[in-house]
Amino acid sequence: MIDARPTRLRGVLAPVVTPFHANLDVNAGEFVRHCAWLLENGAGLAIFGTNSEANSLSVAERIRLTETLLEAGLPASSMMPGTGTSSLVDTVSLTRHAVHAGAGGVLMLPPFFYKKISDDALFAYYAEVIERVADERLSLYLYNIPALSGVPISLDLIERLLTRYPDTIAGVKDSSGDWANTKAMIDVFARDGLDIFPASEALLSTALPLGAAGCISATANVNPRNIALLCERWRSEEATALQDSVTRIRKVFESVPMIPAMKQVIAHATDDGEWLTVRPPLEQLKQDNSARLIDELTMAGFKFENLRYR
Amino acid sequence: MIDARPTRLRGVLAPVVTPFHANLDVNAGEFVRHCAWLLENGAGLAIFGTNSEANSLSVAERIRLTETLLEAGLPASSMMPGTGTSSLVDTVSLTRHAVHAGAGGVLMLPPFFYKKISDDALFAYYAEVIERVADERLSLYLYNIPALSGVPISLDLIERLLTRYPDTIAGVKDSSGDWANTKAMIDVFARDGLDIFPASEALLSTALPLGAAGCISATANVNPRNIALLCERWRSEEATALQDSVTRIRKVFESVPMIPAMKQVIAHATDDGEWLTVRPPLEQLKQDNSARLIDELTMAGFKFENLRYR
Repeated sequence: MIDARPTRLRGVLAPVVTPFHANLDVNAGEFVRHCAWLLENGAGLAIFGTNSEANSLSVAERIRLTETLLEAGLPASSMMPGTGTSSLVDTVSLTRHAVHAGAGGVLMLPPFFYKKISDDALFAYYAEVIERVADERLSLYLYNIPALSGVPISLDLIERLLTRYPDTIAGVKDSSGDWANTKAMIDVFARDGLDIFPASEALLSTALPLGAAGCISATANVNPRNIALLCERWRSEEATALQDSVTRIRKVFESVPMIPAMKQVIAHATDDGEWLTVRPPLEQLKQDNSARLIDELTMAGFKFENLRYR
Repeated sequence: MIDARPTRLRGVLAPVVTPFHANLDVNAGEFVRHCAWLLENGAGLAIFGTNSEANSLSVAERIRLTETLLEAGLPASSMMPGTGTSSLVDTVSLTRHAVHAGAGGVLMLPPFFYKKISDDALFAYYAEVIERVADERLSLYLYNIPALSGVPISLDLIERLLTRYPDTIAGVKDSSGDWANTKAMIDVFARDGLDIFPASEALLSTALPLGAAGCISATANVNPRNIALLCERWRSEEATALQDSVTRIRKVFESVPMIPAMKQVIAHATDDGEWLTVRPPLEQLKQDNSARLIDELTMAGFKFENLRYR
């Protein structure tokens, strides 16, 4: 098929962790440095995702941080900001801002306060957002993460939205944790040009041959280079070794709370203790978990020295 | 015990439904009229609750609506705005605004995006909010509604917060739907001066003698007068008849989605079809449900004519 979209976000994207000062204010300078490092290492910027503690930020903070990245010269086309909130109005504001900034796409949670929401109602919600943004540059990626949102995005809903808004619905990030679900999304929609992103690089060798677009994975925050290489070279002889390597590192993170764990690793690698800071209600890792994490990553071949910003 | 708080919000409070125009904008004028009518009929104003579609409003909309009520001369001391969002920063902004406006209290959801949050982490969150607001006028009511928030508020957490902030923690609204839980909250904390509000007037004759402070109930939006009378006269001979009457009406609402049902009843009573409007992801009642609701309320003795604003 002919792809009308000039640039597509494919390969690996990092749901960028958001650095805070000890007083919980956003550390914008460090955010820019981390984003620049991710880009240099081949990862796109899924800023304001779950792993970014986006829902612990205000709307104003998100807009300010986006502006800061743009002022620092980072390319909007490599960004896929999370713009879904529980409120239609805030979701529209954030989405409009992202589109006007030239973002490559937006990753949109369903409204996540009310539960047992029907597909009709979710369709009406997404349709209302799209109609209000009213901008043909909008590339919308649906974000399925039922364990946190409490509002699953069904195959039927995707089908209906794609039929109605074929030039806007660009893909799905599936954080269902259910490979059968991710696979069904790829099987049904990849041929229609939808970019399906699993939430873990451990699935890349299985998902890419089926037609997945890449992955949007928390651990891309600390291990972008090899995940990006795997996305590029999954047909090559290196693929098995690359997959083994990134999976080994991913598995280490799966035994501890992911967000504080990534911050722990960055704090350790950059020798900057402020990176440990998370906003409540998240908590830093317990001390024994931290020590174990660093040990296990070392044993898994993780190179902390790669994580030093210029 | 001596009560340091000059005014306490007790009796019945309505989680005030928010009227929208057909284009989904807030109808501020109608909001003022509905709030004034509720006050005249003996209900306090728990604006920006679950039934207010508060999480479908932006922070700016909530602040503007509060200002509108104050400009219309409605007493801030009768207001208990919902100020809990998923974001620490927004929660602090809304709480600060409510306190500076002179609100009688605030009803605070826990941060509701991340799940499996420990009591330590929730304690840290509420403590951070309280320390940032840093205002001795703050009366904080904790809002337990695990079916929607996904983050339960335990007796242990209440105890810890009360011990640390005895002049700030003022009460709890328990929408657990579990009477044993509500009763435990009353049994344990009412003697310490905490005001425990069940979420339904059907429980008043049971809860008030045990020491409950009243109720914060959706249906107070349409049936405030008799619920208020029951709160005042629960020791009197009228109590049984009042309880039977309000319970009969409450039960009718429990068979349909509550928020669109209340809006349906107000639209019917005021002959103003715009009142039917809900923001996505909520949906209006289906037509057959609407017709049945009006019929059943009529049979239950509901007086639609009481619901006409001056």
